[in-house]
Amino acid sequence: MTGNNGFTLARLAEQLGARLLGDPSLVIAGLATLQDAEANQLAFLANSQYRKFLADSKAGAVLLTEADAEGFAGNALIVADPYLSYARLSHQFDPKPQAEAGIHPSAVVAEDAQVDPTASIGAGVVVASGACIGAGVTLGAHCFIGARSQIAAGGWLAPRVTLYHDVIIGERVVIQSGAVIGSEGFGFANEGGRWQKIAQIGGVQIGDDVEIGANTTIDRGALANTQVGNGVKLDNQIQIAHNVQIGDHTAMAACVGISGSTRIGKHCMIAGGVGMVGHIEVCDNVFVSGMTMVTRSITEPGAYSSGTAMQPAAEWRKSAARIRQLDALAKRVQQLEKQLEVVTHGPQDSSKS
Amino acid sequence: MTGNNGFTLARLAEQLGARLLGDPSLVIAGLATLQDAEANQLAFLANSQYRKFLADSKAGAVLLTEADAEGFAGNALIVADPYLSYARLSHQFDPKPQAEAGIHPSAVVAEDAQVDPTASIGAGVVVASGACIGAGVTLGAHCFIGARSQIAAGGWLAPRVTLYHDVIIGERVVIQSGAVIGSEGFGFANEGGRWQKIAQIGGVQIGDDVEIGANTTIDRGALANTQVGNGVKLDNQIQIAHNVQIGDHTAMAACVGISGSTRIGKHCMIAGGVGMVGHIEVCDNVFVSGMTMVTRSITEPGAYSSGTAMQPAAEWRKSAARIRQLDALAKRVQQLEKQLEVVTHGPQDSSKS
Amino acid sequence: MTGNNGFTLARLAEQLGARLLGDPSLVIAGLATLQDAEANQLAFLANSQYRKFLADSKAGAVLLTEADAEGFAGNALIVADPYLSYARLSHQFDPKPQAEAGIHPSAVVAEDAQVDPTASIGAGVVVASGACIGAGVTLGAHCFIGARSQIAAGGWLAPRVTLYHDVIIGERVVIQSGAVIGSEGFGFANEGGRWQKIAQIGGVQIGDDVEIGANTTIDRGALANTQVGNGVKLDNQIQIAHNVQIGDHTAMAACVGISGSTRIGKHCMIAGGVGMVGHIEVCDNVFVSGMTMVTRSITEPGAYSSGTAMQPAAEWRKSAARIRQLDALAKRVQQLEKQLEVVTHGPQDSSKS
Repeated sequence: MTGNNGFTLARLAEQLGARLLGDPSLVIAGLATLQDAEANQLAFLANSQYRKFLADSKAGAVLLTEADAEGFAGNALIVADPYLSYARLSHQFDPKPQAEAGIHPSAVVAEDAQVDPTASIGAGVVVASGACIGAGVTLGAHCFIGARSQIAAGGWLAPRVTLYHDVIIGERVVIQSGAVIGSEGFGFANEGGRWQKIAQIGGVQIGDDVEIGANTTIDRGALANTQVGNGVKLDNQIQIAHNVQIGDHTAMAACVGISGSTRIGKHCMIAGGVGMVGHIEVCDNVFVSGMTMVTRSITEPGAYSSGTAMQPAAEWRKSAARIRQLDALAKRVQQLEKQLEVVTHGPQDSSKS
Repeated sequence: MTGNNGFTLARLAEQLGARLLGDPSLVIAGLATLQDAEANQLAFLANSQYRKFLADSKAGAVLLTEADAEGFAGNALIVADPYLSYARLSHQFDPKPQAEAGIHPSAVVAEDAQVDPTASIGAGVVVASGACIGAGVTLGAHCFIGARSQIAAGGWLAPRVTLYHDVIIGERVVIQSGAVIGSEGFGFANEGGRWQKIAQIGGVQIGDDVEIGANTTIDRGALANTQVGNGVKLDNQIQIAHNVQIGDHTAMAACVGISGSTRIGKHCMIAGGVGMVGHIEVCDNVFVSGMTMVTRSITEPGAYSSGTAMQPAAEWRKSAARIRQLDALAKRVQQLEKQLEVVTHGPQDSSKS
Repeated sequence: MTGNNGFTLARLAEQLGARLLGDPSLVIAGLATLQDAEANQLAFLANSQYRKFLADSKAGAVLLTEADAEGFAGNALIVADPYLSYARLSHQFDPKPQAEAGIHPSAVVAEDAQVDPTASIGAGVVVASGACIGAGVTLGAHCFIGARSQIAAGGWLAPRVTLYHDVIIGERVVIQSGAVIGSEGFGFANEGGRWQKIAQIGGVQIGDDVEIGANTTIDRGALANTQVGNGVKLDNQIQIAHNVQIGDHTAMAACVGISGSTRIGKHCMIAGGVGMVGHIEVCDNVFVSGMTMVTRSITEPGAYSSGTAMQPAAEWRKSAARIRQLDALAKRVQQLEKQLEVVTHGPQDSSKS
């Protein structure tokens, strides 16, 4: 073990429970891809289709499966899942600054808020009345924690995260900059063409081990809470409307929009730019491909898609025009079928059909 | 009337002008859905299709229409529009903290800015030179109000809202956290493949009773003002480009993007994820369904859509491939029609067709 | 030259190298469109199709091409590219406040950060350890500059921009409010249905003369840097995922989402709402139209599109239903072709086909 300057291969092998091939005393100072790695860096081969990059890699050592290690002469750590092992090791090579415990003098903390002494409260942070900040929590500069909101132990909030009032956050939750949680959902009653605002009385409940991306927004519930389950991962610029429920370990890529009161199951994967209408249910283990428009409930696990494939613009214009004529085209085909039937078999007795 | 602990049913009936069935002295402490409501809560039946939940509801009382009240034995408030009545009552059950009038000592207010003594200026707020904050306005923590910008009476800005300079906001406007108003629009002139920035000289004019959602962005005009009419409701993560004009009482759901110089009429409803190109006009009373791509002006009121329906991914791949061949398919159908005509009626004299 | 109150037409002509028609002493106090301009304002005719507005314009003077000036009797500046000339002049009519050099007393600057004395550091700004702020840089209120991040000379950051650690910004870069640069990309390894976070070790490298829009997010690289080339212009609410590379002078309109590790060439134009999957390459000089779903690499310059055209909703429902049946329809057409072949030419010898 070499502290901040790196780790010996032996130490990393021990940490991962990996079989070590080669020099145990090699000091690994960082991580890199097979193509970019230098002699003091550890690379990984997560997918055998990239095996072609292995031979020419200058990596000091490589994370490999038993199968991919066959015939490899360099230093290696043999593991069951190289990508997962890379994920595990990545944190000890992360240059992200560690915040110090304590409250920055420029922070504004309400008298009746509770802040654990091991928490780090950054410059300009505001913690409102009755809020509760748990052990080891980091609040980056300019975070706003609303009244009665709670962040359980181990949370990490980047600078400039807004939590409105009555937002309950589980343990080890990571929230990136610009995220807004607990904003007032889009609730209005129409009165003769004018919109009357409905107060959004509910809160937001976030589980443990959740990650929320930059500039993502999660609205508070209209009456009950908006709910995000344990282990959910939300990428950047996602919009979660009021009353939505997201099941445990579901992941959503960037720019997804989920409309009000929709319920999504566990272990779903929602790709970038997907939109879902409100008041539907999506069952567990559903994969929705990018930019799909989900307008009805999904009751069977599996993969779902919508949209049209990209074409050169001139061809696309023809396709788009043809789609608008598609109902007419289908009717013409039906007419052809009838006419051909007449040509082939003669006029039918209508009483039979 | 019971103050913060609730309101008697009699008091709520009087407030709404409702007919009261049952116990006038029942104290209502909160609002909830029919399914979730407890004995001290008021529920509502907004849509007769949910009448099935009425019998089993544990709600202390229910907002009902005359028709839906027939045969209902519990406590009820009979009103013309239960959803609207719920909207009206919701505000008095809202746990949202009320800000106190005054300027927080950590706020930075320019000497020549005007702040009404009844306004509440939160921690870390910056009010720039010549800005004007009206009576009863709340500025949440870390708001930035640019030079010469104005917020008329009754406005409520969540923490962390940015108004650039020369942004004029009407009365009773609500702006959620992370919204940016008056940012510099995307204006560039191309000079031999390089983009030369065009200064965005115009401002933004927002009407009365407007709501602007979390992380929504409204660019300032290039020359004149970007304009948002009275009563307009904008959900989260909407993008309004420079020079756009939005008519009174139009509502947009989340993730809509409106390109530069487009003009949208009054009383329109634009569903989530819709995109509009620039320099078009949409007339009054238009409904655009979710994720529609609006590439031309709309001159007739009504509902408009685009996009394809979701399918299981394997079926979708076939559909998507077929769409790319659609022009060829249409030509084959045309060819079939010609050939069948020949088969049926023999070769035509080309001079006739 | 008249200072802040305007500029004589002679002065503007000299500045642009324009030929002046009319009164050189006319004082121009502002810019406007042909339709809106008043007698002390300069307008421009960028596109001959708007020539109809020229005759009725009340503009004091007009930027015109030689061709469009023919027969125009008013004051004019004759230039090769009126739109570009308007872009050039726009900055001197911009009411945007100029920040003063110096560090606001409420800013929090780390002892080992370097701030050029000509830079302007606004109220509540936080500059972390090892950061470097160049000459003439403006940091608006509440900006957060992470550890070791650098902003080269001439940068202008609106209020409330977040730069995480190790973000390197070139010269004269403009960043609008709410933008987040260097957030942790969406990297997780799946372990038995649970997501294990991968530390995002890389940084972000932004070139010179880049513009980044309001609430746009650019994630840091997983291992190496996310890279944005020189002269790139990014509009509002764009999402750039980890490891993306964007070539010089490429422009993207609002609400574009680029997934991880995708590489985009130089001089591309990506219209609003486009989504790109990860790990693809787009060559130089590509135009992608609005809301297109880019699911494969683009290797030829040109214009590309996807999506369906907007229709009245009733017609759209028919089209959408027909698209789902499109594979079956194509098979029916194929069947018709075979049957018609039999009708026309009789049964074929299958050994020939």
